Amino acid sequence: MVQNPARRAALADAAIEVLAREGARGLTFRAVDGQAGVPNGTASNYFAGRDHLLHETARHIHHRITPDPAILDELLRAPRDRALVTALMHELIRRITADRPGYLAMLELRLEATRRPDLRAQLTRTIRDDLEANIAYHLGEGLPGDRETVVVLYLAMTGLILEHLTLPEVLGVDGLAALIDTIVARIVPAA
Amino acid sequence: MVQNPARRAALADAAIEVLAREGARGLTFRAVDGQAGVPNGTASNYFAGRDHLLHETARHIHHRITPDPAILDELLRAPRDRALVTALMHELIRRITADRPGYLAMLELRLEATRRPDLRAQLTRTIRDDLEANIAYHLGEGLPGDRETVVVLYLAMTGLILEHLTLPEVLGVDGLAALIDTIVARIVPAA
Repeated sequence: MVQNPARRAALADAAIEVLAREGARGLTFRAVDGQAGVPNGTASNYFAGRDHLLHETARHIHHRITPDPAILDELLRAPRDRALVTALMHELIRRITADRPGYLAMLELRLEATRRPDLRAQLTRTIRDDLEANIAYHLGEGLPGDRETVVVLYLAMTGLILEHLTLPEVLGVDGLAALIDTIVARIVPAA
Repeated sequence: MVQNPARRAALADAAIEVLAREGARGLTFRAVDGQAGVPNGTASNYFAGRDHLLHETARHIHHRITPDPAILDELLRAPRDRALVTALMHELIRRITADRPGYLAMLELRLEATRRPDLRAQLTRTIRDDLEANIAYHLGEGLPGDRETVVVLYLAMTGLILEHLTLPEVLGVDGLAALIDTIVARIVPAA
């Protein structure tokens, strides 16, 4: 395995683009090499096989879609009320809109995980740890609501993201911001 | 185009199995023929091309996952309260668990729709009409809550279905029934 971290990250970025554009079955070493603009055979020097490529791509997506701590710190100067939770959800949708291929690639990996137990175990750990971290963050920061508030909010936002990324006109593109406000208002207590 | 309706439905059922198992890129006429156990070349006599096959499969999934009116009528003998909404959501999850390939195939089609504007337009109409029908049904039957209640409940259930079908251990398989109760309790007014 070659160990050039920048090249490895560039190949993982290329894999995300291929996943989003072609689906999981389109994710071949040759397609990744082509997307990254490197000679054929390069990706196969970095990943031991297709499973390895899928796992590393999942890890890289997770890294790419993690929120910027500076933006969160800025938002968290506000009082711990429902308006702050609303602002955090708007920031989440802003990130998703800015990295559409990353989230589409994660949806492709979820479906591929139904066919690959090892990938399912890895994604389950990643997403469960994330959800638990979100719950701990919400409660630790004194945001309104309890553990179940965060779980129900997570599920509604997951539904919104799926709809928005795949069939945006179902909910009306113009109404997205208002819909985020409604979701939080209906699920999160006022303070 | 050949016009044997039973054969056409059997081919669409086979296409759903192929989509769920292989993903959208695995959906070829040859794979559908193989899954349906018919001679190679049969599917191409029923569908004018791959786009036609995708559209007809989407229509067939929608038909397959529509609730049984008799079961709904039975449930609707109860008072119009939150407990009835909870029972309707449990029935939804029962249907999904009983037709896992149908719902996985719909997720595959959602992702394929990001690459095919015609398919996206068709699925958008189908899902938007369904959501509007659910809202009209909820309000018309006098179930508790307003239009936004139904939209937020729809999004949370969509998130739950995605998680349950692709990474069921994230939420804990044992806790699924309790989680449905929680979702309804947090989103739908008591009566």
